Amino acid sequence: MDFDRAARLAKVRLRMASASLDALLISERENVYYFSGFTGGESLLLVTGERAFLVTDFRYRQQAEEELAAGCEPRPRSSASAAAAVAALVRAEKIRRFGFEEENLSRAAHGRLEAKLSGEKMIAAGILISGPRMVKEPGEIDLIRSAGERTVRILSRFREAIRPGITEDASARRLAAAFYRAGGEPAFDPIVAAGSHSSHPHAVPSARRLERKGICLLDLGGRWNYYNCDLTRTLVGGGYPRRFKTVYRAVLSAQRRAIRAVRPGRRASEIDSRARDYLDERGLGEYFGHGLGHGVGLSVHERPALNRRSEEILQVGMVFTVEPGVYIPGWGGVRIEDTVLVTEDGCRALTPAPKSLESCRLEW
Amino acid sequence: MDFDRAARLAKVRLRMASASLDALLISERENVYYFSGFTGGESLLLVTGERAFLVTDFRYRQQAEEELAAGCEPRPRSSASAAAAVAALVRAEKIRRFGFEEENLSRAAHGRLEAKLSGEKMIAAGILISGPRMVKEPGEIDLIRSAGERTVRILSRFREAIRPGITEDASARRLAAAFYRAGGEPAFDPIVAAGSHSSHPHAVPSARRLERKGICLLDLGGRWNYYNCDLTRTLVGGGYPRRFKTVYRAVLSAQRRAIRAVRPGRRASEIDSRARDYLDERGLGEYFGHGLGHGVGLSVHERPALNRRSEEILQVGMVFTVEPGVYIPGWGGVRIEDTVLVTEDGCRALTPAPKSLESCRLEW
Repeated sequence: MDFDRAARLAKVRLRMASASLDALLISERENVYYFSGFTGGESLLLVTGERAFLVTDFRYRQQAEEELAAGCEPRPRSSASAAAAVAALVRAEKIRRFGFEEENLSRAAHGRLEAKLSGEKMIAAGILISGPRMVKEPGEIDLIRSAGERTVRILSRFREAIRPGITEDASARRLAAAFYRAGGEPAFDPIVAAGSHSSHPHAVPSARRLERKGICLLDLGGRWNYYNCDLTRTLVGGGYPRRFKTVYRAVLSAQRRAIRAVRPGRRASEIDSRARDYLDERGLGEYFGHGLGHGVGLSVHERPALNRRSEEILQVGMVFTVEPGVYIPGWGGVRIEDTVLVTEDGCRALTPAPKSLESCRLEW
Repeated sequence: MDFDRAARLAKVRLRMASASLDALLISERENVYYFSGFTGGESLLLVTGERAFLVTDFRYRQQAEEELAAGCEPRPRSSASAAAAVAALVRAEKIRRFGFEEENLSRAAHGRLEAKLSGEKMIAAGILISGPRMVKEPGEIDLIRSAGERTVRILSRFREAIRPGITEDASARRLAAAFYRAGGEPAFDPIVAAGSHSSHPHAVPSARRLERKGICLLDLGGRWNYYNCDLTRTLVGGGYPRRFKTVYRAVLSAQRRAIRAVRPGRRASEIDSRARDYLDERGLGEYFGHGLGHGVGLSVHERPALNRRSEEILQVGMVFTVEPGVYIPGWGGVRIEDTVLVTEDGCRALTPAPKSLESCRLEW
């Protein structure tokens, strides 16, 4: 993909200047890719006011030369430790204060680097990067939309292929393999939860078998070209028990209300409330114990968070999930999740799989 | 798997006592599983002298109840932050000094927790856990051996199935899907590197096509039941060019020398030297820029490191890779990697795929 990485670097440099930082040390793999185009691991990107250095090791030397965007320079570190190599660059570039990603750098890595410095200051500055990354560029949106459409097709074919008697585990692995066959990879381990096991929000697929009658919750997402999507549907075999209908309709209405409320300028916490208050009114609030959603992009979980305590304000170009759920121990769970894009006048779903009550029936 | 987690906890408690720690806060997912049996994410295990608490959130409440080993107690944290919940436990249990995993806990998470404490001390103590985990129990060795054997079968079938013209990327995805079909998952993104691309030690599979003549380097490993293995073979199509023969024989001899040198009590750095010195003597040392190997277990990269600077001493039950490589830019690379187990009198390969010069010929 040809992204304008020079423009991204220019933007982050403005933010660095506002925060009185001479440089920014980028350590999260997705962020290194975002700014430099380098897809390898275990490398650090030091962005100064004028230059950008990728500190990498022997294994990635050639890859760095091939992948780095214009304006980024490889700095293979031969046998020096990463901390020593960064400290040497900091000295050579006369950097006094530099930002680092405090949610990504380990306490130990921070300590090793600090020990090599001679008075230069390290400032927690992850927000300078996670903020801009929340708002997707058109090229990024295209990739997420495409991942969403492919994931919807994989879900649709999977629905046709599964039969009662297959285990959760075998069907989850079948799903995962389908992403590879479709030229991508699973964005996370797919969840297949049958019957009452669906009452675990993060169910781990087990040896439990899908039954002719009952719930089958599917949470899946693929990654193509480094961009992710995330999608959950709750299916049901053998007709609709009364309680399933009630819960499903409530979750679907909660999700639709939340989605209708999305628009630029709104608080993320307000979108969460739309779904939560609705489920509360129906006496189901106590069974919805997690946040409404999370940002999706290069990471499958990134900013913004949509929950009660979130202080994010929605902006055009943000992409996140809307995924209310009701989990009743011993009975089962219903979650309906879409990845959506904030537009000028609302939002658009990037994972357009059917979700009406009628559509969730497994015809087997 | 039924591991004796009580025995593991007893061992780590002895180490805690020697280090004058009242408790240990375990954050790495693999370590939480190792000590408690819990397979979920985003949870913390606080081990005190007498008890062990899993601090988790709504999503994992039921799973914690089902999975936790005897002696471990779930502590769902409702709406409190993880830092607040841990701090409350620390106070309630009258803990004064507790260890944490400094290579795993982020600088920010460390800061959030410290801010909630009232004078209690956090001490970097990752070594108390990573040390014991290096030495595998018989049940762990069985799982790694089984993963190794299955991976060897996947490699063998893959060799039969690939044909010239397929891209690196498509064949790497085919390999990944094979792990799912075999009931496991890939331990890491498989590497398929054709021709001169094999000179990248960490080549990212690309649109480059496998050619009838030339190198095809395969680096793959699977995970079953949470345990990993790691295996690399370098194949060649269309006969053996003279240079390939020379390089292949040198790498294979280097690996064999290193493997023969493995025994309890030896320094890991000495095993590295056996391979490195041999390649140096043959004028190939400059093309071997990475360490000789790394530990394998619940993580695909863990202690011990086998390299020049490693201070580890080999012990019976350690499992690690031995993977010398020669990477010549513009020409190509040869790496031969096995996962091996340290035994009383030497070591045993857990990834028994053929590796003679004759065996690396692609018959297509």
